[in-house]
Amino acid sequence: MSSDLKKTERSRARRVAKRGHYDRATVDAILDATPLCHVAYVIDGEPYCTPTLHWREGDHVYWHGSSASRFLEKAIGGRVCLTVSHLDGLVLARSAFHHSVNYRSVMLFGTAEKVEDPDEKAEKFRNLIEHLYPGRWDSLRPMLAKEVKATTVLRIAIDEGAAKVRTGGPVDDEEDYALPIWAGVVPLRLELGEAQADPRNLAGVEIPDHVARLKIGR
Amino acid sequence: MSSDLKKTERSRARRVAKRGHYDRATVDAILDATPLCHVAYVIDGEPYCTPTLHWREGDHVYWHGSSASRFLEKAIGGRVCLTVSHLDGLVLARSAFHHSVNYRSVMLFGTAEKVEDPDEKAEKFRNLIEHLYPGRWDSLRPMLAKEVKATTVLRIAIDEGAAKVRTGGPVDDEEDYALPIWAGVVPLRLELGEAQADPRNLAGVEIPDHVARLKIGR
Repeated sequence: MSSDLKKTERSRARRVAKRGHYDRATVDAILDATPLCHVAYVIDGEPYCTPTLHWREGDHVYWHGSSASRFLEKAIGGRVCLTVSHLDGLVLARSAFHHSVNYRSVMLFGTAEKVEDPDEKAEKFRNLIEHLYPGRWDSLRPMLAKEVKATTVLRIAIDEGAAKVRTGGPVDDEEDYALPIWAGVVPLRLELGEAQADPRNLAGVEIPDHVARLKIGR
Repeated sequence: MSSDLKKTERSRARRVAKRGHYDRATVDAILDATPLCHVAYVIDGEPYCTPTLHWREGDHVYWHGSSASRFLEKAIGGRVCLTVSHLDGLVLARSAFHHSVNYRSVMLFGTAEKVEDPDEKAEKFRNLIEHLYPGRWDSLRPMLAKEVKATTVLRIAIDEGAAKVRTGGPVDDEEDYALPIWAGVVPLRLELGEAQADPRNLAGVEIPDHVARLKIGR
């Protein structure tokens, strides 16, 4: 069983403590529900906030990029903050101050480690594809050594950080409930559209189950 | 007319130059299409990647937080990178290497300036609400001086940075098109659900136009 995230000066939810969660079930569900994360790096003293794809394997979160990226090279061994966020709804209150949003987010703090071993790296690409599209890897043209080489894989331990979650309706000042103002929630969801086959697909190639059954956002 | 974003060592799209855009029409459309951004700060040498709400006014992007946040206080005057990302689709290719995603993103680099003047700050809250919900501000219980005081508003100039956009289907190695592998795109969109009225709304309070006409994601 995975242990809870460390609460540190950095990671502890301070002002709205009830929104903070440190259990791995909550953290992992948020990480696994979308492939999009944002990673903050410090390069030459400057902050960078980079959107990229991530996937989780056990107690690590992985991301990748081009080996030709000088940027990614500089990030190796440095401190990073990897954040995954879902915007779940707009919360309209009776005062501007109490407007809010519903969301689920995870922030992880740690060091960017590079996966050095080529075999381990090749295995990571398999997991990236299989995480999103179970069963797809074996149907693909096998990965070439030069492709593995051209890609850098980084990871961060799921160790220090926090999840934050807000759900539910507006919470107004008690006296404001007497006002004739519409308040409520407008839910937001990342929705999958209908799969669009590439015009160059060969005749008779059917849409695979891993596309038909895709799930994102939850 | 707004001038294009500065291409700098930091902001120039290097490896896939055709995905880089610097014109304000492209940049502004991406910034305006969602209220969710991620801001990277460096506090005591450590990177932080914080999801928060943003809104644009002319040549600045604004965000806000609690004045009680020691974190936000430390960010004032420091360098930040503010990123807005839309995940528009999953791109499935015939090889693992050419899998991709369609997306629109903007990264902005600059200094976090605090809006000091209370009247200017109050005006910013109006703009935050009106940006998302045109016409709502005047229907709300007016903002209190203590609420303005309790909130810090920060901004970054839209000056240095880049938009990146990927659209379209998979681009495979020419010889791989002969393989009987399903390739294509699965579109993704942030969709609004049906508005849920707060159970404590007064009888006869109707859903306002600014809720019925909400648009997000595009």
